[in-house]
Amino acid sequence: MVGGGQLARMTHEAGIPLGIRFKLLSDTPQDSAAQVVSDVVVGDYRDLDTLREFARGCDVITFDHEHVPTEHLRALEADGIPVRPGPDALVHAQDKGVMRAKLDAIGVPCPRHRIVSDPEDVAAFAAEGDGFPVVLKTVRGGYDGKGVWVVDSAEEAADPFKAGVPVLAEEKVDFVRELAANVVRSPHGQAVAYPVVESRQVGGVCDTVIAPAPDLDEDLALRAEQMALNIAKELGVVGHLAVELFQVRKADGTSEVLVNELAMRPHNSGHWSMDGAVTSQFANHVRAVLDLPLGDPRPRAKWTVMVNVLGGDFPDMYSAYLHCMARDPQLKIHMYGKDVKPGRKVGHVNTYGDDLDDVLERARHAAGYLRGTITE
Amino acid sequence: MVGGGQLARMTHEAGIPLGIRFKLLSDTPQDSAAQVVSDVVVGDYRDLDTLREFARGCDVITFDHEHVPTEHLRALEADGIPVRPGPDALVHAQDKGVMRAKLDAIGVPCPRHRIVSDPEDVAAFAAEGDGFPVVLKTVRGGYDGKGVWVVDSAEEAADPFKAGVPVLAEEKVDFVRELAANVVRSPHGQAVAYPVVESRQVGGVCDTVIAPAPDLDEDLALRAEQMALNIAKELGVVGHLAVELFQVRKADGTSEVLVNELAMRPHNSGHWSMDGAVTSQFANHVRAVLDLPLGDPRPRAKWTVMVNVLGGDFPDMYSAYLHCMARDPQLKIHMYGKDVKPGRKVGHVNTYGDDLDDVLERARHAAGYLRGTITE
Repeated sequence: MVGGGQLARMTHEAGIPLGIRFKLLSDTPQDSAAQVVSDVVVGDYRDLDTLREFARGCDVITFDHEHVPTEHLRALEADGIPVRPGPDALVHAQDKGVMRAKLDAIGVPCPRHRIVSDPEDVAAFAAEGDGFPVVLKTVRGGYDGKGVWVVDSAEEAADPFKAGVPVLAEEKVDFVRELAANVVRSPHGQAVAYPVVESRQVGGVCDTVIAPAPDLDEDLALRAEQMALNIAKELGVVGHLAVELFQVRKADGTSEVLVNELAMRPHNSGHWSMDGAVTSQFANHVRAVLDLPLGDPRPRAKWTVMVNVLGGDFPDMYSAYLHCMARDPQLKIHMYGKDVKPGRKVGHVNTYGDDLDDVLERARHAAGYLRGTITE
Repeated sequence: MVGGGQLARMTHEAGIPLGIRFKLLSDTPQDSAAQVVSDVVVGDYRDLDTLREFARGCDVITFDHEHVPTEHLRALEADGIPVRPGPDALVHAQDKGVMRAKLDAIGVPCPRHRIVSDPEDVAAFAAEGDGFPVVLKTVRGGYDGKGVWVVDSAEEAADPFKAGVPVLAEEKVDFVRELAANVVRSPHGQAVAYPVVESRQVGGVCDTVIAPAPDLDEDLALRAEQMALNIAKELGVVGHLAVELFQVRKADGTSEVLVNELAMRPHNSGHWSMDGAVTSQFANHVRAVLDLPLGDPRPRAKWTVMVNVLGGDFPDMYSAYLHCMARDPQLKIHMYGKDVKPGRKVGHVNTYGDDLDDVLERARHAAGYLRGTITE
């Protein structure tokens, strides 16, 4: 796996019972996954020679993030190393312009959008629809709210163009809530769909995920799952695909979904599955990239809630960690081995049970206590 | 953790979400746990200098097996390294003579037993009770049926004395079935009890575990749990304690339990908890030895069944592994990364659900298929 973040850490954890020999390319020996994996190569994923040296002896290459240059992935494939997801699929998660064009071509509903050339063009894009605000995104390099701007005028639209990367303009969708449809697809085409979840963001960063999404119309849930399975198939995805969705209310009062983003790797909106599903997203990602039969994605509990643990003002979480475990013996804590910095994702907690209010309260309390925003 | 076997492998797996930095002392770099742990020291646990060097920088030392010499553990403690379980507790799992004497002293029911000096003494021991057969065990060094003999006469009793280790004679208990009571205790005395399980052995090796033990009288289950908690407390155990029990029928038709063996580490009879309990034995062992609050040991499913995967005649299990995953997407496979040798424990499978017959059949089929004894 290329990339030593928490997704690689949790993928390794899921690979251990499967008997998988996991090899990691990590930026540093201190990265989240490098702390727990036996076979670690420290190097730069942007360097093709490093990637080639790393790939030697691997049966398959997969990713913790989407930042490996597409041309390097093609070079590895040309060397005969299976890359999963492959570059032709992954480019849709790397380049939002390519992603929107493809989703349009296969008839998947998206927010109104087009590539814009400068602030005047942003104003023209706004005028073509309901006006400002407009969302601007650099087509490459963004994540967790980075590389995304919401602007109210052409004057505010200068910054996104400074990076010299094409800029995608999108209508600011007046959504009811955000959902995510997570699916996993294997090379020979087997696919499984996790229940559609509700994802609540704070400041552009995923905060809370509720599985399954409460009060979601069954037909809409099914359509969202089928849409995600269809995207996986049409784009040739292998491994885990997260389809981030906006749930919008139509004029007739019914709901519809629009695709916000795609991620082709295990995803924050699937962390609930570690304790809440028969087979976690990480286990199914491993199974998919190795072309093993996929595991059952169904939930094990009526409700599972995940809340991210962000770093707070106190670098030492140890006493809070003790408190949370003592307070709730059913709490599932997942720490990433990262130094605590304000706002940094350093872990997540999962809770599950029959009573959603209780399950939500327990997860929120634990995450807040670990961050230091709740003190009793 | 000292020892690189599958128990260390699964303990590391359980420690990853807790954010634990796991350091391993392994006999070889190929051992089961050494394949998946970042920080591995290869060395001999029987050598005190190796242990001391390994222990440097550890917050606490715990074990994959019970074979570290007691005097070395005392030396580490004298160096100021917390050893959990400590030597005063662990000796009861290392030396069956010490164990029996202590259980007698605290009033825990055991099979009739005493240390015997030679084959004639075995005959005397038999005559003191119901005669032969008699079970003979070397007090140290046995596991999985090794170091245990069942003899029908004094003439057959020569072998056990050849090792020069004291020999314990025990009545051969006419048991209804074998049970195990698993508990975990932390240094400040918090303790949790897993439901009592039924354990079925084949050839002295654990084959199948059913959690909870079917048709077990509630009072007897509670007595067994309390007995295990009491043993943990009286012996000062820290970490996981497995109390292997014989369920016997008394003259009045009611059942009672006798203690067969103790193990002070995660134990084969607790592997079901990885998929069947809120908190697995491995997670609770880690929490206990680090003096963290313990997790909920309650079952997540009505029935969970574990069946060990033993090596069969075919060294390559890969196609069987594919078959089992494809046949049962809910199957939980746990492979240990070991070379397949006939009769060797190379993994286990867990299944869970509401229908015990179905859950048993699925686990048995998968384990049998992986071993090669079931071919369709």
